[in-house]
Amino acid sequence: MALEPSPPFTTVRPTRDGRGVVILDQTRLPQAETEVTLRTRAEMEEAIRLLRVRGAPLLGVMGAWALAALATERAAHGMTDGALQIAALRDDAEALRATRPTAVNLGWALSRMIEHAAAALSTSPPFDAASLAEQLRAEAAEIHDEDREMCRSIGRHALSLFPTEPPSLTVLTHCNAGALATGGIGTALSPLYLAHAEGRSLKVFADETRPLLQGARLTAWELARAGVDVTVIADNMAGALMASTRVDAVVVGADRIAANGDTANKIGTYPLAVLARRHGVPFYVLAPTSTLDPDTPDGAGIPIEQRSEGEIREGMGRRTVPHDAATWNPAFDVTPADLVTAWVTDQGVIRSWP
Amino acid sequence: MALEPSPPFTTVRPTRDGRGVVILDQTRLPQAETEVTLRTRAEMEEAIRLLRVRGAPLLGVMGAWALAALATERAAHGMTDGALQIAALRDDAEALRATRPTAVNLGWALSRMIEHAAAALSTSPPFDAASLAEQLRAEAAEIHDEDREMCRSIGRHALSLFPTEPPSLTVLTHCNAGALATGGIGTALSPLYLAHAEGRSLKVFADETRPLLQGARLTAWELARAGVDVTVIADNMAGALMASTRVDAVVVGADRIAANGDTANKIGTYPLAVLARRHGVPFYVLAPTSTLDPDTPDGAGIPIEQRSEGEIREGMGRRTVPHDAATWNPAFDVTPADLVTAWVTDQGVIRSWP
Repeated sequence: MALEPSPPFTTVRPTRDGRGVVILDQTRLPQAETEVTLRTRAEMEEAIRLLRVRGAPLLGVMGAWALAALATERAAHGMTDGALQIAALRDDAEALRATRPTAVNLGWALSRMIEHAAAALSTSPPFDAASLAEQLRAEAAEIHDEDREMCRSIGRHALSLFPTEPPSLTVLTHCNAGALATGGIGTALSPLYLAHAEGRSLKVFADETRPLLQGARLTAWELARAGVDVTVIADNMAGALMASTRVDAVVVGADRIAANGDTANKIGTYPLAVLARRHGVPFYVLAPTSTLDPDTPDGAGIPIEQRSEGEIREGMGRRTVPHDAATWNPAFDVTPADLVTAWVTDQGVIRSWP
Repeated sequence: MALEPSPPFTTVRPTRDGRGVVILDQTRLPQAETEVTLRTRAEMEEAIRLLRVRGAPLLGVMGAWALAALATERAAHGMTDGALQIAALRDDAEALRATRPTAVNLGWALSRMIEHAAAALSTSPPFDAASLAEQLRAEAAEIHDEDREMCRSIGRHALSLFPTEPPSLTVLTHCNAGALATGGIGTALSPLYLAHAEGRSLKVFADETRPLLQGARLTAWELARAGVDVTVIADNMAGALMASTRVDAVVVGADRIAANGDTANKIGTYPLAVLARRHGVPFYVLAPTSTLDPDTPDGAGIPIEQRSEGEIREGMGRRTVPHDAATWNPAFDVTPADLVTAWVTDQGVIRSWP
């Protein structure tokens, strides 16, 4: 039976009194492991906007705990009326949603919390603000639990794809689709935590992932923190790695998967898929079912966000590109479905698309 | 008839009195364009060791001008004996060679200068130190001229491979094999300077080239300085570029070309070749004939230098990799010959190997 590991840190949790949210400040990683307690809506908004808390699934969990905490705080401060509570919550949800308008999970979780509050209010016995807050804390815990279970399901399905011989596994990953991006053990990194918990010998290579270095700063940090052997390489070293080392699999997350399987993910994913194909390395996309977008027929329909030139020009606080040269900074690329060995969601393994 | 452009800066030149060497300090780029005058051997050694002057062909030119300057300085300070002069020069050559022991061109140019001095001394009329120094300045100028001509030849041969229609050209390059690496208009960048001088519409994309960012700092600087439209991208964006833009060619330099055409060049070159093949983009290796190594049968025999982990861990002066994660930092990768469309040297175009 598989062990069920937990990461040795908590990305988001409620305070003991339920009136605040404690987050691991991801902007301080890897230099410092700092927890920050957020008690006001302004503090919560700022934490999301400054990427102290980030990662699509985790933002959903964060939004849920944020609304529960704000409701609990108001109830503790004497608000008794359930209808006033829900009006305030709608206002909170709008403000939090506006911090990252394209974060689908954040908006989804906020809406679910508001719907839950509205449904609770419409039932008898009528809820006062305190009991409504208690209901919302239970709902946030439920959303968090579902996220943990989503991670574990992805990991179990993906682990079944990995070779069992030799017992040692070498895996390459890109960006951060790990525990730091979720309320559980991550999406792309989930099977690695499971393999490590089973005692398999595991070696992970992590692309540093320019421009924002999520691989170096976040993936390397969380894997090393969990005792996993992790080695950071520059993004342009994956070819040399595959040419010199047996790599058993490439695992990446996804931002959006079109109806034909074309997959948008962090810039630099597509070149890895091309290299993996040349070297006969299986290339797996691991993502929650919510990432599937049946309304977008193929990758050509996925809009690619262009980010600010400063990330390239002064990526690490020092000017590296001369002022009279231009920069180009797409946040994502699209990996055509033909290069993906399998997509793994919490629902199972997809090997081809209708 | 093709124009013969010169770069709008000088990488290495003698001082007006011949007793020193003026270099463009490449460690200050792109922030500042600073010339430094080197008058003592210690200053010359330090400039090479600290990479103020770098690039395989340019180090040869630098070595030649350094010996000529040191000989001129001694002659001006009263050394009259030709035999003493050559003994001092041998000592200088050993010291300069030791600064970058694997730099083939540096050693080659120093040896050529010493041989030239020895041959001059053995002829009649016997040379005194002053006339020997004059001979050495002439030989250094000859080495510099040969380097300029090598660059132009590579450029003319390579330009003949580029499509003539449409008149606009879009080219991707990696690292810096440009004017800053030579005494002339570069190797990989040479055809781009020629195309620009001919008035062709030219758009160059330059990989920033982690870990040391020679593409961002040097290639972007020298092309922008010459008025060429250049855009810097992170190394992991080349796939998105080829998927979204017509790229007419990839041009790269080489550190060593094995007898079967396998090509060692800056880390990240091989993934570009794999991407170019997938997108049907011609992939050209441009390098002087001296880069060909007939004694190494194939890429497996090319030793790959491993550089310090600090370049990955604290690449831009800031700790980005946690202390308990490892790093891997190969300086070069090997592009198999089957992925190279053509190799271009100063002697001509090579499309396949015996």
